[in-house]
Amino acid sequence: MRKGRKHNHMADADLAAGNGVLNRRIFLERALLTGAAGAAGAAGAGTDALAEPLAVSRWMKEPGAQFTAYGQPSRFEAKVARSFAPAANPATLGIGTARTPVQLLTGMITPNGLHFDRSHSGTPDIDPDQHRLLIHGLVKRPLVFTMEALARYPMESRIAFVECGGNSGALNAPQAQPLNAQAIHGLVSCAEWTGVRLATLLDEAGVELSAKWVIAEGADAAAMSRSVPLAKCMDDALICLYQNGERVRPSNGYPVRLLLPGFEGNMNVKWLRRLKLTEGPAMNKDETSKYTILLKDGKAWQFVFPMEVKSIITQPSPGLTLKGQGFYEISGLAWSGKGRIRQVEVSADGGASWAPAALQQPVLPKAVTRFRAAWRWNGAPAVLQSRATDDTGMVQPTRAEFAAERGLRGLYHYNAIATWRIDEKGEAINAYA
Amino acid sequence: MRKGRKHNHMADADLAAGNGVLNRRIFLERALLTGAAGAAGAAGAGTDALAEPLAVSRWMKEPGAQFTAYGQPSRFEAKVARSFAPAANPATLGIGTARTPVQLLTGMITPNGLHFDRSHSGTPDIDPDQHRLLIHGLVKRPLVFTMEALARYPMESRIAFVECGGNSGALNAPQAQPLNAQAIHGLVSCAEWTGVRLATLLDEAGVELSAKWVIAEGADAAAMSRSVPLAKCMDDALICLYQNGERVRPSNGYPVRLLLPGFEGNMNVKWLRRLKLTEGPAMNKDETSKYTILLKDGKAWQFVFPMEVKSIITQPSPGLTLKGQGFYEISGLAWSGKGRIRQVEVSADGGASWAPAALQQPVLPKAVTRFRAAWRWNGAPAVLQSRATDDTGMVQPTRAEFAAERGLRGLYHYNAIATWRIDEKGEAINAYA
Repeated sequence: MRKGRKHNHMADADLAAGNGVLNRRIFLERALLTGAAGAAGAAGAGTDALAEPLAVSRWMKEPGAQFTAYGQPSRFEAKVARSFAPAANPATLGIGTARTPVQLLTGMITPNGLHFDRSHSGTPDIDPDQHRLLIHGLVKRPLVFTMEALARYPMESRIAFVECGGNSGALNAPQAQPLNAQAIHGLVSCAEWTGVRLATLLDEAGVELSAKWVIAEGADAAAMSRSVPLAKCMDDALICLYQNGERVRPSNGYPVRLLLPGFEGNMNVKWLRRLKLTEGPAMNKDETSKYTILLKDGKAWQFVFPMEVKSIITQPSPGLTLKGQGFYEISGLAWSGKGRIRQVEVSADGGASWAPAALQQPVLPKAVTRFRAAWRWNGAPAVLQSRATDDTGMVQPTRAEFAAERGLRGLYHYNAIATWRIDEKGEAINAYA
Repeated sequence: MRKGRKHNHMADADLAAGNGVLNRRIFLERALLTGAAGAAGAAGAGTDALAEPLAVSRWMKEPGAQFTAYGQPSRFEAKVARSFAPAANPATLGIGTARTPVQLLTGMITPNGLHFDRSHSGTPDIDPDQHRLLIHGLVKRPLVFTMEALARYPMESRIAFVECGGNSGALNAPQAQPLNAQAIHGLVSCAEWTGVRLATLLDEAGVELSAKWVIAEGADAAAMSRSVPLAKCMDDALICLYQNGERVRPSNGYPVRLLLPGFEGNMNVKWLRRLKLTEGPAMNKDETSKYTILLKDGKAWQFVFPMEVKSIITQPSPGLTLKGQGFYEISGLAWSGKGRIRQVEVSADGGASWAPAALQQPVLPKAVTRFRAAWRWNGAPAVLQSRATDDTGMVQPTRAEFAAERGLRGLYHYNAIATWRIDEKGEAINAYA
């Protein structure tokens, strides 16, 4: 196998920002790739196998496994799993979070088995034939829906992210903690959701003029509930029955959940059983003592719903050690609860210089967008960052800017630029730049 | 609960085609829906529950299940499964097909556990650390890639369908067979695939001027192989490592598969181990005795690769019994191996009249597009059809047109308009219109 010789030294014209961030045309020209091929040799586990690539492997010598009704990942991918703290107490089983391994995934779709799960009293085992959705309160005609009846309505599909309001909250800590992308940012996932427009059902119920809020309640043991502005419910809210083509998973609200595209995850009530139209918000636990944004002066913002523009670098990131100098693709996710991603920039020198990343099409509103940039690592320490801008013009703040506006006492809606510091060994760690 | 009264008799202005196909503006005006709400009462399983919708269910009285590392569908959805013939012989385990339950899914994404599987010697259990991809033949520099090395290259993601060349082949039978949508059309699925452009790797290997074909070979015990035009490999072919965000599933080619967007499924070689560049095609079993298109005069078309424009109605379809007169959404999938879907029309009177269906955005090239239309069933027999047009102008033929051009002796690339006949009881059956 040929070792990379060409392009080991980039022309200045290829540089888009400091410390080896390369012009995106690299992707089109397909230059530089001998860097990666050289790495192929370096990364090769079995030189015998490399010498005899046409040797017939064990699995070619016998028939493979038979068909299965519902497939599973390879046994070699067992590490690609949601992370959660072991339950210390049987009474608190299922209270907390299970996080998506964002550093081991790519693309925009999160497979259903790995969608993050934030639950307040575990996942209920709901019989769909017995479950009902009630719409009542300030409506002309209270309505009760069986799941079968809901399925008769016109449906819509949309690819949308759901992000827990507490995602990335670990970055409020005064010192950067030695956590990986999953532990810090793993409370965001993205799926194709299909369901009935809530506006359709509300129109049928007949909304009273005095109604301004909708109290959404789940059928878990916590009866988790949130107050949603009626305007959102009449805009793009979906009563979701399907997630990536199949019925919504139990941990994501089976048999039916509320989807409020772009709004903090907690409001996308799972196991939805009730929508009550009211004049004012309910002031429930999860919109007063929790899921409010505590500011540095001790006051708090309440009812701040859309998740702000944000991006994270998923590769490289802690645990994914760089294997020697040369070409790497920097890849990550960007999203905004207010619209589409307009631009993502990356920096390898801690924000001193920036270059635009390529955005994977289609770029959809309130969905994650995969971004990619070319980077040549010279083996020296580097500081990787990404900065997203949405189509409302909002730009991700630096951590200092975020702290100046909100302080770092809160737990929710952290969206500042995140940093991975790469050391000489190619290890990445969470850092504050 | 209020019974539907309004709109039980549609104004003529709402009709878009014969036998109750309604104008798409119904979706926007949100009219007609009392029909569905009326049906909610009819479909309601438990009148006690309907009378007391706020009764606290069993699952609200105890904590729910704890977190899981990799989630699964609800136990109440066990029927949503791939179908396959039981293996009659241990020697033929895993030879054949496992079909996607298209009639039970919606949206455009097929969840990985339900992606169809056509295998020639079962699913090999490949250790990714031992697997290699070889590029050789008419290249300047033969290359061998570990999976780790492949993952260093720039990646792309695209949502694309894969359809087996034999999908819908049952409709070649002289008499319409009593089969459901899964049995007839279940060899098509759609996922977000992520991988390295094959062109990138071929550029690195250095393609000799004399090379015109690429022989792709899998690492299953069948060493399934196909000849692919070099032009396709240099165009949009992907060396896929990821499927809907996670690593490609074993039954779909783990650890690496070829994706040839729009080309017949068999060519999208799974468990890819070898790409050999050659002057001519290899004339392998699966491009001579199989996967050729037998015409009525006994001659055959060979090397017809793109799957032609096609659509299927997934709901209603056999097994999904209509529950009384009133509003239904007709929903289905359309796709073309040559580009984007431009239009889908539906008919409820066996093709005597047609109305345009709504296309779910985004409409992507060589991906499935979900279409939906509004229909009011009057309780009389009906004949449902859909007809897709792609952006090259190709229109799905009628079965008679298809038979006139190709005959019905073939097994592959059947793309004629399909028909479900609805009887007075609301049962759907496969029929030839």
